Amino acid sequence: MCELLGMSANVPTDIRFSFAGLMRRGGQTGPHRDGWGVAFYEDKGCRTFQDTHPSSDSEIARMIRGYPIKSRIVIAHIRRANRGRVMLENTHPFVRELWGRNWAFAHNGQLRGIKKWRLKFHQPVGTTDSEHAFCWILDQLRGRWLKQPSAAALDAAIAECVRKLAALGVFNMLMSDSRALYVHRATNLVALTRRAPFGAATLIDEDLTADFARETNHTDVVTIIATRPLTRNEPWAELPKHELAVFRNGRLGASGAVVRAKSRSKPKLKRAA
Amino acid sequence: MCELLGMSANVPTDIRFSFAGLMRRGGQTGPHRDGWGVAFYEDKGCRTFQDTHPSSDSEIARMIRGYPIKSRIVIAHIRRANRGRVMLENTHPFVRELWGRNWAFAHNGQLRGIKKWRLKFHQPVGTTDSEHAFCWILDQLRGRWLKQPSAAALDAAIAECVRKLAALGVFNMLMSDSRALYVHRATNLVALTRRAPFGAATLIDEDLTADFARETNHTDVVTIIATRPLTRNEPWAELPKHELAVFRNGRLGASGAVVRAKSRSKPKLKRAA
Repeated sequence: MCELLGMSANVPTDIRFSFAGLMRRGGQTGPHRDGWGVAFYEDKGCRTFQDTHPSSDSEIARMIRGYPIKSRIVIAHIRRANRGRVMLENTHPFVRELWGRNWAFAHNGQLRGIKKWRLKFHQPVGTTDSEHAFCWILDQLRGRWLKQPSAAALDAAIAECVRKLAALGVFNMLMSDSRALYVHRATNLVALTRRAPFGAATLIDEDLTADFARETNHTDVVTIIATRPLTRNEPWAELPKHELAVFRNGRLGASGAVVRAKSRSKPKLKRAA
Repeated sequence: MCELLGMSANVPTDIRFSFAGLMRRGGQTGPHRDGWGVAFYEDKGCRTFQDTHPSSDSEIARMIRGYPIKSRIVIAHIRRANRGRVMLENTHPFVRELWGRNWAFAHNGQLRGIKKWRLKFHQPVGTTDSEHAFCWILDQLRGRWLKQPSAAALDAAIAECVRKLAALGVFNMLMSDSRALYVHRATNLVALTRRAPFGAATLIDEDLTADFARETNHTDVVTIIATRPLTRNEPWAELPKHELAVFRNGRLGASGAVVRAKSRSKPKLKRAA
């Protein structure tokens, strides 16, 4: 299995603190030694870093830890290979263009039989189940709309795709089109929203504390999604299972998005045990 | 205008020496202050780094200079903006997937009226002429073949696309599909092939010398393409103007590729003045 880290924020935000915690799990405090990757959105631009080295021992990860890239949406992934060899083209997040926007995708889990699902417009470069699933989602969207539809229509279509994919196995997913962060929990995904009044937080995986009160404005809203809580002293909440959660500007379903394939109710975050 | 750097090699090769020379031209020994980017192929995988900061003052460029990424194909670009604002999504190289391969593209020049050319499958994310031209090339190829054609057919089709684009203005181009490096010179592009017996070379833009005899095997063939020569004491040759040059494994037209749109003769490198 792998671990995921995502961020949705209403202002460009430096994710280095959370990233530091995740990177330790890539071979040091966790077993995810088979590469890692991260996509940072800067407006419509998308900057990705990927490495087949363990993140705890990666030059590129060290550089990112020292470099304050500010982003409103981030998707990161550390990999423990189950399908697909340890190669650059099998490293998440995967990125594709659709409707003039950069889409990024990271996945934790297995999807039995996905490779039999036919693809038309987008083809995988590598050999993972995950990239095939991502190409299939984009194919469904492109086949349905030549241009970008409304946010509500798009959210509903993605929820429908995700429901079909989740039936194949374990589908913990982070995906973005540079505007929304789409999140699906099958097994483990927790969320934490930081907003005023901001306090301090200490990482679980490293002796590192951040005082967010010093680095933020009172209007900032920043939601972090992770496979397991990254900090000791904050109220991480489990995301609802088997539903698509859509974050915009740090908020869950802020656009009134349909987040279930078959209903219009918004999921509620449950406090993590 | 901008400057380009490309590499085609028959073994994974560390391009840091040439990269160091180019990066100095991004704001220090040259005026190209509006961002830079580089794509490194590792088999089918493609790793890109991009930055809107001048390359001579970029943390990411410094990290790459210290990190021996070995690649058989590299495409790099430093930008002086003429069309399109200085933003991440306007930073070359642009990357797209076609037929399950990563395509990367960088361009120096202007193409008048290109934005009126209609696109179907691939859409630009940013606002540059260059990305539009890249999307148009990929559209032509995808519209013609659902799956990857033979190398000869592909080379001929790309030569035809490039000929049409070059009629719009200045089209110095580097492009790759992870197997070949496609090069088109409109104004300035020079090439240098390093092979046994290897010697030493000194950069023009920095007091840095490399002794390739110590770092290579006698079977290595490495061709470097650049807007202007990067080293003082090597025989850089001008590429033929207005023809598509196709490099595979460090060699020009090694597959017997068609490199002109309308003829089958191979271009010859002319010694630079």
